[in-house]
Amino acid sequence: MLGGNILVLRNFSEMVEKVRGFPTKKTVALVSAEDEHALEAVLNAEREGIVKPILVGDEAKIREILKELGADGQYEIINEPDSNKAAYKAVELIRENKADFLMKGKIETAGILKAVVDKEKGLGLGRLMSHVALIEVPTYHKLLVATDGGMVMYPTLEQKKEIINNAVEVLLKLGYDKPKVGVLAAIEKVNPKMPESVDAAKLKEMNLNGEIDNCVVEGPISFDLAFHKESADIKGYKSEVAGDVDILVVPNITTGNVLGKSLIYAANGKMAGIVVGAKVPVILTSRGSSAEEKFLSIVLAAATS
Amino acid sequence: MLGGNILVLRNFSEMVEKVRGFPTKKTVALVSAEDEHALEAVLNAEREGIVKPILVGDEAKIREILKELGADGQYEIINEPDSNKAAYKAVELIRENKADFLMKGKIETAGILKAVVDKEKGLGLGRLMSHVALIEVPTYHKLLVATDGGMVMYPTLEQKKEIINNAVEVLLKLGYDKPKVGVLAAIEKVNPKMPESVDAAKLKEMNLNGEIDNCVVEGPISFDLAFHKESADIKGYKSEVAGDVDILVVPNITTGNVLGKSLIYAANGKMAGIVVGAKVPVILTSRGSSAEEKFLSIVLAAATS
Repeated sequence: MLGGNILVLRNFSEMVEKVRGFPTKKTVALVSAEDEHALEAVLNAEREGIVKPILVGDEAKIREILKELGADGQYEIINEPDSNKAAYKAVELIRENKADFLMKGKIETAGILKAVVDKEKGLGLGRLMSHVALIEVPTYHKLLVATDGGMVMYPTLEQKKEIINNAVEVLLKLGYDKPKVGVLAAIEKVNPKMPESVDAAKLKEMNLNGEIDNCVVEGPISFDLAFHKESADIKGYKSEVAGDVDILVVPNITTGNVLGKSLIYAANGKMAGIVVGAKVPVILTSRGSSAEEKFLSIVLAAATS
Repeated sequence: MLGGNILVLRNFSEMVEKVRGFPTKKTVALVSAEDEHALEAVLNAEREGIVKPILVGDEAKIREILKELGADGQYEIINEPDSNKAAYKAVELIRENKADFLMKGKIETAGILKAVVDKEKGLGLGRLMSHVALIEVPTYHKLLVATDGGMVMYPTLEQKKEIINNAVEVLLKLGYDKPKVGVLAAIEKVNPKMPESVDAAKLKEMNLNGEIDNCVVEGPISFDLAFHKESADIKGYKSEVAGDVDILVVPNITTGNVLGKSLIYAANGKMAGIVVGAKVPVILTSRGSSAEEKFLSIVLAAATS
């Protein structure tokens, strides 16, 4: 957890600096560490003073990649060539407080999640797990969360509530006070024919009656009103969330995916992504993720684990 | 319709130049023209040599606004203070070939659409009406269509087919040959649990068997693969649509709205929007639309009517 009374993070540099200043480094357990790109990202983060790594996986292959990468440091390696067993081993490290968060290497997403949600040996808290994308967009004055574009496909009202709680918790751990949440729809008024607008109004109500806490929820709200104060002013839409949103909540995974990807590829954004809701954050970046995204995801996980 | 063998429009300037070069100017019928912003947009387009206007509405108020705007030209005004009647009057002008397309002034969207879809006196073609947003994004090499983020809330497979046909027709009228269509989903493989991915594959199949014509349909495809060639290369996704998409088809209105708004407000894009599927294009810009969006929408309607 970050100390001090930071209210917002304007960009990722501020987040990196904070994590670098931690008195003790967090430890990442890299599952099936014999993945060149994930391993390189972890080593970069280690060199930058962000984390200590434990490499769980096929030791021979890991040593080969370390050699190729010219990494001559001493790394803790736990030999477990079977990726499913490697996931369980890494989860055990978390349970024994030997590691602080998980990252996916050369293993399927389903494989690592199976170990995380295992009823007996896993890291479940009985909560919904959801994906939190933290995005730095050059056209916005602070970091922006988009959720959930990666885990929950068509969330129910109750699941949306949990998605909000998960994202709020991440920002509270980053030092935010009362994050501003915008529940997105195509419109600003409730239309009974549009379930996401109905849910948005209900979520706002849950926030007003204290059922959703530690944040300010607005909705239904369209992207332009949440993102761009002037648009809200022109439409006479009054809300402290308008133009100053911290967390954008989408009605389904496709909207979240399209939003996240458009902010990155069309708006030149940078992204950090973690799965939250279990005992520790899990990083599930894919082949398509840039080295920078992997690095920033490690920083975000370190900052919030 | 634009002449020549243009294959793509790189930006709106190219579209404006083309329309300026038309041998005869198109005529816009502005419905309930006593709306300062809509009227100003039409007068600007007239001054730029794009259109001739016919102003249908409350003549006294229209003359007042013209005076305020310092417009001293001679404009054809049809006095009809009742906005619903004004819509029918404007539709009649289209049917009598006295005007080429419609624009919404101080009238509710439902009011103008009612006249457009009127079975006896309207402009219906028995086709689905859908919204086509044409967007210029600084980070993309040509104009990009996003559809439908404005009319059809949760389109069925058959409606998605019509949405594609409507958008393709717009680009063909702009001089395109075989526009590249990407049907968006959060993933690139069909997942039976995600209906939009199933529909996307079906739409691709309809294109392959000739049921959807004059275009190349790819799907399911994620935004990054459609927009950014390098992302497709990294994932080994081979398609002529990857990184070169002309038309992005979204599964529902919220995804389309969020996509369009993020391309405009986060990615500094410019937009032109028209509703198509009736005998002529209809411009339904709102208070929140910038003067530039209104102008570009008039240009797009003139180019495709």
